[in-house]
Amino acid sequence: MAKVLTSREENYSQWYNDLVIKADLAENSAVRGSMVIKPYGYAIWEKMQSVLDKMFKDTGHQNAYFPLFIPKSFFSKEASHVEGFAKECAVVTHYRLKNNEDGKIVVDEDAKLEEELIVRPTSETIIWDTYRKWIQSYRDLPILINQWANVVRWEMRTRLFLRTAEFLWQEGHTAHATKDEAVAEAETMLKVYAEFAEKYIGVPVLQGVKSPNERFAGAVETYCIEGLMQDGKALQCGTSHFLGQNFAKAFDVTFVSKENKQELVWATSWGVSTRLMGALIMTHSDDNGLVLPPKLAPIQVVIVPIFRKEEELNAITEKVDVIVKELREKNISVKFDNRDTHKPGFKFAEWELKGVPVRLAVGPRDLANGTVEVARRDTMEKETLHMENIAGKIENLLEQIQNNIYQKAYDFRENSSFRVDTWEEFKKQVEKGGFIYAHWDGTSETEQKIKEETKATIRVIPIDGKFEEGKCIYSGEPSKQRVVFAKAY
Amino acid sequence: MAKVLTSREENYSQWYNDLVIKADLAENSAVRGSMVIKPYGYAIWEKMQSVLDKMFKDTGHQNAYFPLFIPKSFFSKEASHVEGFAKECAVVTHYRLKNNEDGKIVVDEDAKLEEELIVRPTSETIIWDTYRKWIQSYRDLPILINQWANVVRWEMRTRLFLRTAEFLWQEGHTAHATKDEAVAEAETMLKVYAEFAEKYIGVPVLQGVKSPNERFAGAVETYCIEGLMQDGKALQCGTSHFLGQNFAKAFDVTFVSKENKQELVWATSWGVSTRLMGALIMTHSDDNGLVLPPKLAPIQVVIVPIFRKEEELNAITEKVDVIVKELREKNISVKFDNRDTHKPGFKFAEWELKGVPVRLAVGPRDLANGTVEVARRDTMEKETLHMENIAGKIENLLEQIQNNIYQKAYDFRENSSFRVDTWEEFKKQVEKGGFIYAHWDGTSETEQKIKEETKATIRVIPIDGKFEEGKCIYSGEPSKQRVVFAKAY
Repeated sequence: MAKVLTSREENYSQWYNDLVIKADLAENSAVRGSMVIKPYGYAIWEKMQSVLDKMFKDTGHQNAYFPLFIPKSFFSKEASHVEGFAKECAVVTHYRLKNNEDGKIVVDEDAKLEEELIVRPTSETIIWDTYRKWIQSYRDLPILINQWANVVRWEMRTRLFLRTAEFLWQEGHTAHATKDEAVAEAETMLKVYAEFAEKYIGVPVLQGVKSPNERFAGAVETYCIEGLMQDGKALQCGTSHFLGQNFAKAFDVTFVSKENKQELVWATSWGVSTRLMGALIMTHSDDNGLVLPPKLAPIQVVIVPIFRKEEELNAITEKVDVIVKELREKNISVKFDNRDTHKPGFKFAEWELKGVPVRLAVGPRDLANGTVEVARRDTMEKETLHMENIAGKIENLLEQIQNNIYQKAYDFRENSSFRVDTWEEFKKQVEKGGFIYAHWDGTSETEQKIKEETKATIRVIPIDGKFEEGKCIYSGEPSKQRVVFAKAY
Repeated sequence: MAKVLTSREENYSQWYNDLVIKADLAENSAVRGSMVIKPYGYAIWEKMQSVLDKMFKDTGHQNAYFPLFIPKSFFSKEASHVEGFAKECAVVTHYRLKNNEDGKIVVDEDAKLEEELIVRPTSETIIWDTYRKWIQSYRDLPILINQWANVVRWEMRTRLFLRTAEFLWQEGHTAHATKDEAVAEAETMLKVYAEFAEKYIGVPVLQGVKSPNERFAGAVETYCIEGLMQDGKALQCGTSHFLGQNFAKAFDVTFVSKENKQELVWATSWGVSTRLMGALIMTHSDDNGLVLPPKLAPIQVVIVPIFRKEEELNAITEKVDVIVKELREKNISVKFDNRDTHKPGFKFAEWELKGVPVRLAVGPRDLANGTVEVARRDTMEKETLHMENIAGKIENLLEQIQNNIYQKAYDFRENSSFRVDTWEEFKKQVEKGGFIYAHWDGTSETEQKIKEETKATIRVIPIDGKFEEGKCIYSGEPSKQRVVFAKAY
């Protein structure tokens, strides 16, 4: 069968685009930079949402909803925040269309807004303007709120899921009475993200903080999880920010403490987005298509009947109905692909492309022998199993696949992580890709120069990084800890 | 205890606003016409979403996501559609801010869009532009897609939940090979909405079609469910549109039929929004606050301990822990309000305001007697019950409350429905409120004149309405069926 995808070796970037489109995950829309998330892609995102939402609620958060539009003046209140987002804002200036003299639809200039509205690129400003009204006393704290929403950042170069003008995400925004509590919250959410990335998406992530250059606009500290894709480039998978009192200052949010003092409120924010779809795709998939982690697969098992005559299909269906029932009792999602319009080979390729973790094939010989052919998507291995307790066997297999794809990604990352001590070696390794553990003198200037010369940035300063004396690969100045460099998405 | 709400009799409209704000459901934001949905209000909306989402999936629909922005030119393609929405569109004209000479943040005029983007008021146009690419053959049909999203309609007079510039909703958009199939889909979704309104929100609804004046812009037929609020005004709770081939024509969406002919695709769309929150609030609530249907209550049971000393609280807590466990085993959501900062009376009033269906109070005497005081929110009745099988008793009570509030609303509607045959009587009844069953000559002109003279509109032409000869109350022309008039939100 002809390959439907460009291979990764031939053109990794093309492979990714092909895959997203041909596996029916998403496509570009008529609106520059905005994507359409197709039902199959959206079903994966829904699974992510459902797991994350539960994790947020289990850690004490509640959902709410804040306006899409933000008055321009709010934006300007936190200086570094507006600096970070002003260049990529969609701006609403009018609130009405009309017919002009030629009968064409045009913007009605009489309906110009007094103050322009920004389509939210993130919601700190509108939320902290609201929190001012909610917070008077320490008794009103903490506020632990999350929002599922769409946001817009006018990116010039877009790629499906990885960088789009509009994307879907969640943004947590919390308010606290003390610095320690806010820092603990930011760290807790980092752990939640890391757990989700590793246990559900199967992406091993480095945890740590960003260097000042890479910090969120308005944050005191940005925590992040960082994954390594198959082409050796890093992908930031989620961030959690300790915002200090910056937004409380900008929006005048104070509270009366237990000691009866007026104090500024401490803040965090944290988010993950549809970008996680990109992490999922790029970490596990291969030249045959998507490889889905069983825990997030909309269809975990597909069953393909092998038959020539209708009687055969009928006999197979009878057996398959039993298997389907047993699988569903174990909460395993299963699809019986009994289309008579396509041959088994076509179906095999289609479900491989779509990354279904386990495929069962049942033919007349299997019926006679009481067997079923079981193929796993991750390794492409096939084996013939007895029907007896088939649901239990598949349940185990799904767990094995989940573990295996994580382990494979983990091994890949470990084999693509390098300790580098000289500038020459550093430049060579950046070209080859991977996580580069190197000493850095701690200055923004050096970080900037390294970026200009190699396109590598500091992805993360590891939280659990061991302290170790060394010299900055670029400046030769002393350093106490290696940081992780890579080229990134 | 002082009443926190204006009474309905004193000022119904003020009562509603007070209630939405004081029960912590939503509030106005700094952005004109946009609301903040607070955690308690959002939790009710999440329950609505979760039930509806399952109903949509059970009827074969999948979720997807389409862009927030719609190019202006798309909008103009379906003439009556743009006519209906042009006057209330938020328009994005620029994609960047900058600092001006004074250091102020201003819109960057160099970043003007070539074509303006409309913030979606509804998504037919962008979706049908996409469907053109998805549909070639009858094999690609039907497409049964739903989207959960935010939409913006620039309303001049806004009211929390009922009419806001931005609101949350779901919009189904389906594509079919035949007219019959599309009509059946529109009718199926009307039934789904009616079932949800009645069984979950507890709002009895009339089902029918809209008169041409009240039809969705671009629809051939608009089906709707219509509820009656306590002030005698109607509230449209959901609509389902048979769109004919209007959008297929506008966006050139054709398919090759089984007979190998090129044909235009048939369409439906259907939606319900956060307006349902308004229906829920106004149908059941009273002067003490919200009355929540148990099936949508974020907290179904609240337990208030009655104690003076800490030992008493400890003894009560021990017993309450058992009750909580038993209730949770029955999937009943329960909150133990053990705050020591507030008195029981305060707590009672607070949970009444927030509409929690069942309140338990447990004091030292209850412990001695093996009893608990059970208060139901809908009737405000209290009784003392033995602890034995308390979870089972409460489970029954929740079901009774769900049925009772529906029945109460149903009786109210029936008592507020009138058959009217003269114009004088009609005008008087419109002032008093309620659903008015009257004959109408079927012309838009008459409908328009009735609206101008009385503010009443045709809410619905009942689907199961009996045919009956009569004369139009306004023109005296012959009519074959009564239609339902009312003043409406």
